[in-house]
Amino acid sequence: MNMCVGDILIITGNSNTTLVDNICKNLGIEKVDCEVKTFSDGEISIDIGETVRGKDVFLIQSTSSPVNNNLMECLILLDALKRASAGRINAVIPYYGYARQDRKTRAREPITAKLVADLLTVAGADRVLTMDLHAGQIQGYFNIPVDHLTAVPYLAKYFKEIVNNPKEGKKRDFVVVSPDLGGVTRTRNFANELNLPIAIIEKRRPKANVSEVMNIIGDIEGKNCILIDDIVDTAGTICQAAKALVDHGAEEVYGCATHGVLSGPAIDRIEKSVMEKFIITDTIDTEKKLIGSKIEVVSVAPLFANAIKRINANTSVSEMFDKR
Amino acid sequence: MNMCVGDILIITGNSNTTLVDNICKNLGIEKVDCEVKTFSDGEISIDIGETVRGKDVFLIQSTSSPVNNNLMECLILLDALKRASAGRINAVIPYYGYARQDRKTRAREPITAKLVADLLTVAGADRVLTMDLHAGQIQGYFNIPVDHLTAVPYLAKYFKEIVNNPKEGKKRDFVVVSPDLGGVTRTRNFANELNLPIAIIEKRRPKANVSEVMNIIGDIEGKNCILIDDIVDTAGTICQAAKALVDHGAEEVYGCATHGVLSGPAIDRIEKSVMEKFIITDTIDTEKKLIGSKIEVVSVAPLFANAIKRINANTSVSEMFDKR
Amino acid sequence: MNMCVGDILIITGNSNTTLVDNICKNLGIEKVDCEVKTFSDGEISIDIGETVRGKDVFLIQSTSSPVNNNLMECLILLDALKRASAGRINAVIPYYGYARQDRKTRAREPITAKLVADLLTVAGADRVLTMDLHAGQIQGYFNIPVDHLTAVPYLAKYFKEIVNNPKEGKKRDFVVVSPDLGGVTRTRNFANELNLPIAIIEKRRPKANVSEVMNIIGDIEGKNCILIDDIVDTAGTICQAAKALVDHGAEEVYGCATHGVLSGPAIDRIEKSVMEKFIITDTIDTEKKLIGSKIEVVSVAPLFANAIKRINANTSVSEMFDKR
Amino acid sequence: MNMCVGDILIITGNSNTTLVDNICKNLGIEKVDCEVKTFSDGEISIDIGETVRGKDVFLIQSTSSPVNNNLMECLILLDALKRASAGRINAVIPYYGYARQDRKTRAREPITAKLVADLLTVAGADRVLTMDLHAGQIQGYFNIPVDHLTAVPYLAKYFKEIVNNPKEGKKRDFVVVSPDLGGVTRTRNFANELNLPIAIIEKRRPKANVSEVMNIIGDIEGKNCILIDDIVDTAGTICQAAKALVDHGAEEVYGCATHGVLSGPAIDRIEKSVMEKFIITDTIDTEKKLIGSKIEVVSVAPLFANAIKRINANTSVSEMFDKR
Amino acid sequence: MNMCVGDILIITGNSNTTLVDNICKNLGIEKVDCEVKTFSDGEISIDIGETVRGKDVFLIQSTSSPVNNNLMECLILLDALKRASAGRINAVIPYYGYARQDRKTRAREPITAKLVADLLTVAGADRVLTMDLHAGQIQGYFNIPVDHLTAVPYLAKYFKEIVNNPKEGKKRDFVVVSPDLGGVTRTRNFANELNLPIAIIEKRRPKANVSEVMNIIGDIEGKNCILIDDIVDTAGTICQAAKALVDHGAEEVYGCATHGVLSGPAIDRIEKSVMEKFIITDTIDTEKKLIGSKIEVVSVAPLFANAIKRINANTSVSEMFDKR
Amino acid sequence: MNMCVGDILIITGNSNTTLVDNICKNLGIEKVDCEVKTFSDGEISIDIGETVRGKDVFLIQSTSSPVNNNLMECLILLDALKRASAGRINAVIPYYGYARQDRKTRAREPITAKLVADLLTVAGADRVLTMDLHAGQIQGYFNIPVDHLTAVPYLAKYFKEIVNNPKEGKKRDFVVVSPDLGGVTRTRNFANELNLPIAIIEKRRPKANVSEVMNIIGDIEGKNCILIDDIVDTAGTICQAAKALVDHGAEEVYGCATHGVLSGPAIDRIEKSVMEKFIITDTIDTEKKLIGSKIEVVSVAPLFANAIKRINANTSVSEMFDKR
Repeated sequence: MNMCVGDILIITGNSNTTLVDNICKNLGIEKVDCEVKTFSDGEISIDIGETVRGKDVFLIQSTSSPVNNNLMECLILLDALKRASAGRINAVIPYYGYARQDRKTRAREPITAKLVADLLTVAGADRVLTMDLHAGQIQGYFNIPVDHLTAVPYLAKYFKEIVNNPKEGKKRDFVVVSPDLGGVTRTRNFANELNLPIAIIEKRRPKANVSEVMNIIGDIEGKNCILIDDIVDTAGTICQAAKALVDHGAEEVYGCATHGVLSGPAIDRIEKSVMEKFIITDTIDTEKKLIGSKIEVVSVAPLFANAIKRINANTSVSEMFDKR
Repeated sequence: MNMCVGDILIITGNSNTTLVDNICKNLGIEKVDCEVKTFSDGEISIDIGETVRGKDVFLIQSTSSPVNNNLMECLILLDALKRASAGRINAVIPYYGYARQDRKTRAREPITAKLVADLLTVAGADRVLTMDLHAGQIQGYFNIPVDHLTAVPYLAKYFKEIVNNPKEGKKRDFVVVSPDLGGVTRTRNFANELNLPIAIIEKRRPKANVSEVMNIIGDIEGKNCILIDDIVDTAGTICQAAKALVDHGAEEVYGCATHGVLSGPAIDRIEKSVMEKFIITDTIDTEKKLIGSKIEVVSVAPLFANAIKRINANTSVSEMFDKR
Repeated sequence: MNMCVGDILIITGNSNTTLVDNICKNLGIEKVDCEVKTFSDGEISIDIGETVRGKDVFLIQSTSSPVNNNLMECLILLDALKRASAGRINAVIPYYGYARQDRKTRAREPITAKLVADLLTVAGADRVLTMDLHAGQIQGYFNIPVDHLTAVPYLAKYFKEIVNNPKEGKKRDFVVVSPDLGGVTRTRNFANELNLPIAIIEKRRPKANVSEVMNIIGDIEGKNCILIDDIVDTAGTICQAAKALVDHGAEEVYGCATHGVLSGPAIDRIEKSVMEKFIITDTIDTEKKLIGSKIEVVSVAPLFANAIKRINANTSVSEMFDKR
Repeated sequence: MNMCVGDILIITGNSNTTLVDNICKNLGIEKVDCEVKTFSDGEISIDIGETVRGKDVFLIQSTSSPVNNNLMECLILLDALKRASAGRINAVIPYYGYARQDRKTRAREPITAKLVADLLTVAGADRVLTMDLHAGQIQGYFNIPVDHLTAVPYLAKYFKEIVNNPKEGKKRDFVVVSPDLGGVTRTRNFANELNLPIAIIEKRRPKANVSEVMNIIGDIEGKNCILIDDIVDTAGTICQAAKALVDHGAEEVYGCATHGVLSGPAIDRIEKSVMEKFIITDTIDTEKKLIGSKIEVVSVAPLFANAIKRINANTSVSEMFDKR
Repeated sequence: MNMCVGDILIITGNSNTTLVDNICKNLGIEKVDCEVKTFSDGEISIDIGETVRGKDVFLIQSTSSPVNNNLMECLILLDALKRASAGRINAVIPYYGYARQDRKTRAREPITAKLVADLLTVAGADRVLTMDLHAGQIQGYFNIPVDHLTAVPYLAKYFKEIVNNPKEGKKRDFVVVSPDLGGVTRTRNFANELNLPIAIIEKRRPKANVSEVMNIIGDIEGKNCILIDDIVDTAGTICQAAKALVDHGAEEVYGCATHGVLSGPAIDRIEKSVMEKFIITDTIDTEKKLIGSKIEVVSVAPLFANAIKRINANTSVSEMFDKR
Repeated sequence: MNMCVGDILIITGNSNTTLVDNICKNLGIEKVDCEVKTFSDGEISIDIGETVRGKDVFLIQSTSSPVNNNLMECLILLDALKRASAGRINAVIPYYGYARQDRKTRAREPITAKLVADLLTVAGADRVLTMDLHAGQIQGYFNIPVDHLTAVPYLAKYFKEIVNNPKEGKKRDFVVVSPDLGGVTRTRNFANELNLPIAIIEKRRPKANVSEVMNIIGDIEGKNCILIDDIVDTAGTICQAAKALVDHGAEEVYGCATHGVLSGPAIDRIEKSVMEKFIITDTIDTEKKLIGSKIEVVSVAPLFANAIKRINANTSVSEMFDKR
């Protein structure tokens, strides 16, 4: 017997209703009737339409752009759920904004990723469910339980077919490439799924007063490359990396990332890049603006639905990843 | 001898630099070199340009519109100051956003004003300095010291001349009017400064299925009226109130409020209203958009500068209001 | 399915055993055998006679006079319940003492209503159930869930018959009157239940060095008046207000309040006042001293019993007020 | 150089103004003008008459009878001082009430001494200064610094003359006696100051269904005895102990204790007891009711004044006891 | 109905696997597959082999020698259980190390017993189960529920037979003796179980510059003595006490203690002492090193198994001691 | 003017007295007389020999092997300093043990690096000073200020001479190599100081059921290599890495690391390795066991002394690294 918690209730703000609807479909339940509006002066107003007492409430909200509004929606909903006597409050954050501000690199910097963890906790979260955090250490920013999913095997599965069936007349050799020094471990995990070697790109200034170049560490000449990152924001780095690979003799170049922030010139850059395809998941809402582009979206809704079911039933979440 | 704290440092985000510059001028010091920017994806980035160790730092930031961005700027700055070993961190919030969400009026409402207090505290504020809170009880939402200034005597002083020197041919009788039932105590305090009687307006539905009317409680016929509120947001209520007063026989109508949120149609409404003049303070930045309008702005910068000096010197803040 | 909590246990100190017995009767259960005594030196000693492990314990205690003793009984019981492994501890505070000290009105004042909230929380309360708080903002003093009941519709229901069947030869026009500026919103809520207009009384000094008078804002001449307040303590204000109403031409005057503190000369004043009747509830124990007086008591025990049942069953408490 | 704190301010409630005046005289300063009153309904009201910003405030309040009122006065003053920006708040509790409820001896007992520590901390105390706690472990109930004074050497010094100059014709042999099993260590410490042996009294039931007797462990026959306790409340135990000593052949019997609670029949019992003299200190106010009795009072005001001076100056408090 | 918690899971570090296996046998369940290892550099590594989500986890770990390693094993396991979403985490500490550092006896001492309580709480314990704490006040160091078992009746039961059937030719009179002044209350409780008188030993320096002697308070001449302590560490005090008793005319001497720390020369000293037998429990693992010695071990596994069952079922733990 | 703190006091446990003495020499002060001993049963006992009231206390303690003992010494000292009224307590942790347990890599793992941060905070640390944390995110585990020093520029400076003056007949080309994927960013920072390229080694299994090999990413053939890591524990990885470099055609190989844990076979492995030299700092005490070995020690005492002076004087610590 496990400790009993109430039935699953799904509630959300405005950050990613497509994903939430999709998760609900996977769970076979309706989301809670809840209106999250903005007043004329920009203050958020919420109206939860049904009782949440004693329920196992999953508040799903990516803290993607507009990040401060989405975060405040999340915090205000947490406050309301806490005061309305929800049985257990699970903050589900498919994309955890401000994750890249996870340590001090200069004097007097904030550690905003920790601040956000503290804000979620003080507002009322009992536990957190999230995906591919920019740094695994962010789990330690919480003292409440965090279940940390990964889309890396899903992304790898997508590439299995391409790797096993390369375009006719193309090389069969693939290498997985990290577009910067920070993503090397992720790159290795992804490459392990496909049993491939890795290479690494670093931006470097060869001498003082000489401009930075993309330096490639490892062997990519004449090979097909798959670039992988956790977050693609303005897509500057990954598109330059792709170009550098081709410049150094790579054949085809593909890209992928869990979180498609795609801010500013990102979509345009990817479209114009040398990459054949770019794969992201739906942790951030892309609002159909990607239709017809090089960018394909893999849904993580089944993954979240499964995790929610397991958390509610108090069965292992880690098994989801052991059994693939 | 008092406990020694460091020298005053003034730091700010982007919410109201005009007021901050004005406060600095009053104090005769420069504000800290600090850049608060927004990345392409909407995340806030800060760069504090000088050491804050052991200083008595006053972070001045109104949480006015865009409220969620301004609040997050404030929280991130607090986190950075805390980690950078500031001696004492004073959060100066001239306008405290979300103050009207100060209690549950329906089931499952948040108490966002309390949430904001908890967020400021967890982010690192050691104390708070603010002005004309929507409800005095918000002070009790904090367990850190709060100094609570009021602009009410300043606004009253402004009207003294008008009351004592009415336009020629106009009535000399003035009455102070609360535009709704919630502001009655504030109205009485303001009226006391001018030794005037008060009246109250309530929106009321005379019978079921009949539309709401502005009902006036108290005697205003043939008198000049001064409407007072703490916050004027869309200006709907106060402009309707002014009209109702005139409809019921008032002579001239004036209006005033501490915080000029002035969102949406507010300025247009005030311009077109029956009010002669409308007085606000500069707790919220109006960006010169008021030039040439009926709306006049009284600066509270000297009030804040004085309070900051006293807090730093550990001398009484309440005396500021005793001695007028 | 809801999160499961244990069976209801009712436990109490000495503040209001009449109400508690009445609640128990409504719930059809016995209260826990628990002795709360005072030693010779005034220290409180408690002896809980049965196990509370894993139970849903409702500790009912009004913090009425002697307020400090009743509050300490409450805190010590909370400490004992926490250490004895109660499943969930619900502090039921029908009358919340010190509620009027809810903000700083002078320099160096405490905010005792917040202090009490912190004391209840640190002693071990998991949630609070209370009634007609002096200010709704006090809910925000807690970070644990607060269910806030109101007796206002009950009191209104009592007056429905009087309003609809005035004494013969008496006027049929009624107006609801707030005895001071702070209670205006409550007065409007009560008046809405009976669809009546309101008036307001303020104490005011017409000129410097002239004594205060009761000034009536709104029209009461020739009408029957119902004065309403949340707390009646020494009854000075309400009795003066009643007299002022009659002096200004009111016909019959009635009074009511949720919480009958009735300290010092209160009962005597009410008896001698011009009021016809005065209605209170039993949130505070009046120990039969009211028998034969003008003061009638309406029991809120059914309201509390219903709320306790709903909290234990994890069903909506707000519906209690929607469905009347 | 030490960390600088502000000047000493002494503030107090109503529990023991005699002692506080005495401490102030020792320090050569006036106490803060502060009125602590009780409203008609029993709620405490305070009015602190001067600024406390940045000062090193010592709030002196024994939580003696009426313990709940005195404790609440203390907590409310702490809340006010915290909100008024006192530089450092030192709770000086010469007599710590509820100290005897320091552990669970039966099922479902509170640990009220710990609860009180938590209440003092949450209300705003930064540190504590107290004397002869019933159990030394109570220091560990706090996570703020506690300075723990003892009056035992003072009481011993008082007896030095008696021991060295026994009444003519009387035995010269003295033994120090603990009136119960819990005070044995204290008895040994006191006896060490006088280099005397000890004996112990226990209440014991020799067989089932036989009434309890005072059993004396150790040798007292033909000797003069000094009974010592930390707290004398109703004086039942110590007076019975004195009688038992005489019954078993003791010559003269003296008594002493740090804290003279003296509730109920205590003074009468001591007057009628076989004890020659009974010495207490002034940690609890005895209001001159002891004049002419067997009970003598030794003032600990110099001890507290010295400790306050040392805490303010950041010099060692423990040295006070090393150097005697 | 009680609040529902999950099934019992037993988990442990390396401090006392014999006792844990014994408790599991009593409960009829297997302990959780969990490896707790030490890396080459001394850091502890743990691997919990099965899911703990929603379970009622009992982590059993005595913080006996090597105390710092055993305590850190306990804290790290608590952290892992908390992050792995255990339903409820019960820290079962049969022997609570550092309990003797429970108050400040000199300037600048730590209160390590309180520190340990804080460490356990911050690491994630929801409740504590322990036995014969050195001071009952340590329960108050926690704000989470503590169930406090005692082995004193078990030890007494062991001696019942000896007391009732003394060796032939030996005296029938028994007295229970405390080896120091601190253990007098424990001695009385033990003696009550057997209806025996008590005596007390104190180490004392008769005059300055004279060496300490063991002074016996109470009558032991010609009697059989049972020495009792809570903790026997190096066994110096108890062996000297036994010798002093014989020197002063005692017949046979026995000893017992709940916790057999038995560090350094302890076993050797006991073997060579005048004591006939020495009885301890198995709260601390003795690793069979006692085979063939005077020291006998009574198992408290049934007591812990029973308490665990009752805590899980939410039935009274105190009844275990009422019903003997 | 800065906030005033007291004079610097240096205090330490037993983990690294050599470094502490060196720091004191740099500061020109004596460390506090403080005895930290272990009782026969393994419990730690401390005796601080002088007053710490109001002082700016720097407790220097590496949590190196025996890590649990050194950590507990640190925590107990913090508790004692807090209770003894130290003015400010700075925990100086040159080597932060358990830093490698900084995130969950498997189900049910602890995050011990976060646990340690919580333990230090709850025990009483006001701020932390440390060096080259295994992951920068560990700073975010604290909500107290952390000053984070780095020895990387010191180590680089050491190699400048070697790089600029290679052995005669040897290649002049150097490359900095990361021995694993986790250390790539550190490797780049170090290489930047010397303006050198980098290479990376990864352990990889080329196919299923084939044993792991050291795979080198980047170009090292015919070059001199400098391996850099933050922590060298058993030295297995770095020695294998060195061998792999030589096997793949590297000329000379050097190694360095900030923290020389050097557990188990480490020293022997390094001696027998192909590395020419191995450089560490003295954050961990090596007790002269390195004399005559390949391992050279660079002292970071001046770095810590400088940081302590700046923290005490409230001047910038980051400037230490800007100005090199």
